[in-house]
Amino acid sequence: MNAPLEPIDLEPQAPSDHEAAQNALERVQDLLRDHPMLEVLADREDPRDQAQLGESIEQLIPNYDFSALRETLDPLHPADVAFVLEALPRTERLVVFELVKASLDGDVLLELSEPVRESVIASMDTEELVEAVETLDADEIADLAPDLPPEVVEEVSEGLDPEEREQLRTAMSYPDDSVGARMDFELITVREDVSLEVVLRYLRRFDKLPDHTDKVFVVDREDNLRGTLSLDRLLVNEPEVMVEDVMARDGISFNALDDAGEAAKAFQRYDLVSAPVVAPGGRLIGRLTVADAVDVIQEEGDADLLSQAGLREDEDLFASVWASAKNRWMWLGLNLCTAFFASRVIGAFEGTISKVVALAALMPIVAGIAGNSGNQTMTLVIRSLALGQTNASNARRLIVKELGIAATNGLVWGTIAGLFAWWLYNDTPYGLKLGFTMMLAMMLNLLLGALVGMAVPLVLQRFGRDPALGSSVLLTFSTDSMGFFIFLGLATIFFR
Amino acid sequence: MNAPLEPIDLEPQAPSDHEAAQNALERVQDLLRDHPMLEVLADREDPRDQAQLGESIEQLIPNYDFSALRETLDPLHPADVAFVLEALPRTERLVVFELVKASLDGDVLLELSEPVRESVIASMDTEELVEAVETLDADEIADLAPDLPPEVVEEVSEGLDPEEREQLRTAMSYPDDSVGARMDFELITVREDVSLEVVLRYLRRFDKLPDHTDKVFVVDREDNLRGTLSLDRLLVNEPEVMVEDVMARDGISFNALDDAGEAAKAFQRYDLVSAPVVAPGGRLIGRLTVADAVDVIQEEGDADLLSQAGLREDEDLFASVWASAKNRWMWLGLNLCTAFFASRVIGAFEGTISKVVALAALMPIVAGIAGNSGNQTMTLVIRSLALGQTNASNARRLIVKELGIAATNGLVWGTIAGLFAWWLYNDTPYGLKLGFTMMLAMMLNLLLGALVGMAVPLVLQRFGRDPALGSSVLLTFSTDSMGFFIFLGLATIFFR
Repeated sequence: MNAPLEPIDLEPQAPSDHEAAQNALERVQDLLRDHPMLEVLADREDPRDQAQLGESIEQLIPNYDFSALRETLDPLHPADVAFVLEALPRTERLVVFELVKASLDGDVLLELSEPVRESVIASMDTEELVEAVETLDADEIADLAPDLPPEVVEEVSEGLDPEEREQLRTAMSYPDDSVGARMDFELITVREDVSLEVVLRYLRRFDKLPDHTDKVFVVDREDNLRGTLSLDRLLVNEPEVMVEDVMARDGISFNALDDAGEAAKAFQRYDLVSAPVVAPGGRLIGRLTVADAVDVIQEEGDADLLSQAGLREDEDLFASVWASAKNRWMWLGLNLCTAFFASRVIGAFEGTISKVVALAALMPIVAGIAGNSGNQTMTLVIRSLALGQTNASNARRLIVKELGIAATNGLVWGTIAGLFAWWLYNDTPYGLKLGFTMMLAMMLNLLLGALVGMAVPLVLQRFGRDPALGSSVLLTFSTDSMGFFIFLGLATIFFR
Repeated sequence: MNAPLEPIDLEPQAPSDHEAAQNALERVQDLLRDHPMLEVLADREDPRDQAQLGESIEQLIPNYDFSALRETLDPLHPADVAFVLEALPRTERLVVFELVKASLDGDVLLELSEPVRESVIASMDTEELVEAVETLDADEIADLAPDLPPEVVEEVSEGLDPEEREQLRTAMSYPDDSVGARMDFELITVREDVSLEVVLRYLRRFDKLPDHTDKVFVVDREDNLRGTLSLDRLLVNEPEVMVEDVMARDGISFNALDDAGEAAKAFQRYDLVSAPVVAPGGRLIGRLTVADAVDVIQEEGDADLLSQAGLREDEDLFASVWASAKNRWMWLGLNLCTAFFASRVIGAFEGTISKVVALAALMPIVAGIAGNSGNQTMTLVIRSLALGQTNASNARRLIVKELGIAATNGLVWGTIAGLFAWWLYNDTPYGLKLGFTMMLAMMLNLLLGALVGMAVPLVLQRFGRDPALGSSVLLTFSTDSMGFFIFLGLATIFFR
């Protein structure tokens, strides 16, 4: 564009809402630092038993003045309270949780990450838990249920009315990663043979519409989904118009057994706010909202990030050293095994290395670069599998392309590494040979890295496994072991 | 829960909407395979120039029967058309794009990933581009503008009415990662001194409300934001009620210069559907919707994933080998440099290695495990920085905890590795010494990995840089070079 675009209003920005939460955290930290009650708690024995700690805190709190802390906490949204709790050490965390208005406890539990939620729940007795959880909707109770003691779920379930109990039963019966486990039951339904005027009058009888109501659901007498009526159409059309004339009949709906991740993608792709969930016969049983979809997207991204680093699950920032170490062991153990194997490959060539010690210095280069290059290939393949873009018909093209890239990179980086090795060992009798070995080994190992980087996720996917899980261990294993084998094997031939 | 929960309706699921898109892709691939027109195109010279290719396709299409393909494409949502285009080779991609109804072109361009969008835009001439883009809203044009030739933006801008041109100017003036660059201008505003009846009548004058309208904005005569009126409150209250009595005055609003990522987090945290965007003085200038927030969350997750593997940007599945290879070079070059350095560290100890060749076989274990363990630490630190949970007051605790974990892991895995080394070289005179060297080196290098894994992101963050970018190269550099140095250095002392 030729006309220059001048920025408007470039003044310093007001604190965003996220900063408000961070400020609250800092104030809470300040107020709790050197607080006399925490000193008392620190002196008591066995502070690690959460139940005991929770009880002590409950007894001690009335003896101290916490008005400043309460003032900071009271205006906070449950999600912000959860944020503050996540960032506090365990004792401080329980003090703050104890101070939060009892009516909020359930909502705060919902917002906490799993490890922190477990630590908080462990500090509460059955009565407190029932009190906190019974304020929630059936679908929310179902979300918490796996972390709650069975007697709490049972007691809460008995306190529900029959309809809600049935909803709880329904929500708990679907697998974790299905739409059914994520849906809620806050449905507003209307019939198709009434006028918008009737719908408007019906809506006025509510105190509040469910969150994320962008449409109401049109059902027949058997609760079969007939279509949806968006608030948009309800508002722009005249009151005399009939629902059946303006409702959408072919909108997107999900089956309760659909994969939640796929549903979340549909929300993103079609910019949905809410969508009906039906049982296979077509009966409307719940609805999914964009808030659920956002959570699914976030959780899947998080899980990818953690599993790539070999963390079994999310960690409480203030978990004990022991618990955290255990969370990381499987991965380290697995990697130690592959490292042992690679070490034995090198061990098999000790004769060659003792002849030309320079090989020991150069071999990690061959293994490392192929690992990096293979990881690039693997990341792109896993990503395109996740997007559904790779199918039988273009997999072959993808393989040819990636092998082409690996060959190109092998030529470029192999030559550079070969020249480097030659230059480095120029004053020895085997400088040129070393350089050539290096180049050849780099090229072969880069090709191998690309092959493994493609094959592992494609094969895992073919067998119905998550292509991201475990791929990187297998890749490192191959590029290390085979890298050493190729390089030292070639050297054994050339330096015979 | 004691009462067993029986699953309901566990029948095979109907195809979700995502599967519909994948089915469309397969049909398109089938219809284009061995299509006579594609054979003609394949015979022509220089098929890589996108502009030329686009022109040839435009000329050839009228000579062939594409009715089956059109039938497949016509019912697709623009996002699904984009999905199909992403998964097609470049020639097929342009054929399909040419067949998509001209009125959809702009929407499809919006949905494409950047590399594919660039390839499609390169095939279109100015006139086609203007035609495609001028159907879009000002904020959407602004999103495309960086990828469009300047003359197209200028021509489109001249065709806009003054209000839209001003909006385009506004949207283009904000930095890429700000709320201002993401907001749209589809605002419905009302005054506070009118009744809901008036609002309802006003809304009926629209043909359609903007997508994601969950609230209308209440402004004064100077367009200053006074509050918001949710459709919920509009619908549940009686028509006689005044707007000022039911509007929300303290809802969340964003400043146009706020960080888009932070705003997206607020959408997730507070389950928002839309929120007003104001200029610093308080004037309402746009709105942000959850669809924008979801895109931001997705894009940030994607960028993390790609940059962790050292891919500069997203890759077109069907980009040329050369273009893709270049996308991966910086990372490989960087890693080659660190590998060379590590190689020189080993080179400095060639004397020791020639004495005890077993060292060469064992040293990669020391480097590898510390790298893996340091990466776990780093991933958690980067994550807690991104969540804003780490501040000055708990950073120290975090450091103590991570060092504790590293020491624990060092003891456990160092001992295992040491015993392994001892057992392996039991029949040599230096077996026990090797095992001890191994154990000590593992412990020290794991501690180093934890220190670097924490320090790098914390320091990058302190200096206002993205803590995720480049951290892993620095970590590998340290655990490799220092791992070799520690292990071989200790060995030099012990085996003197």
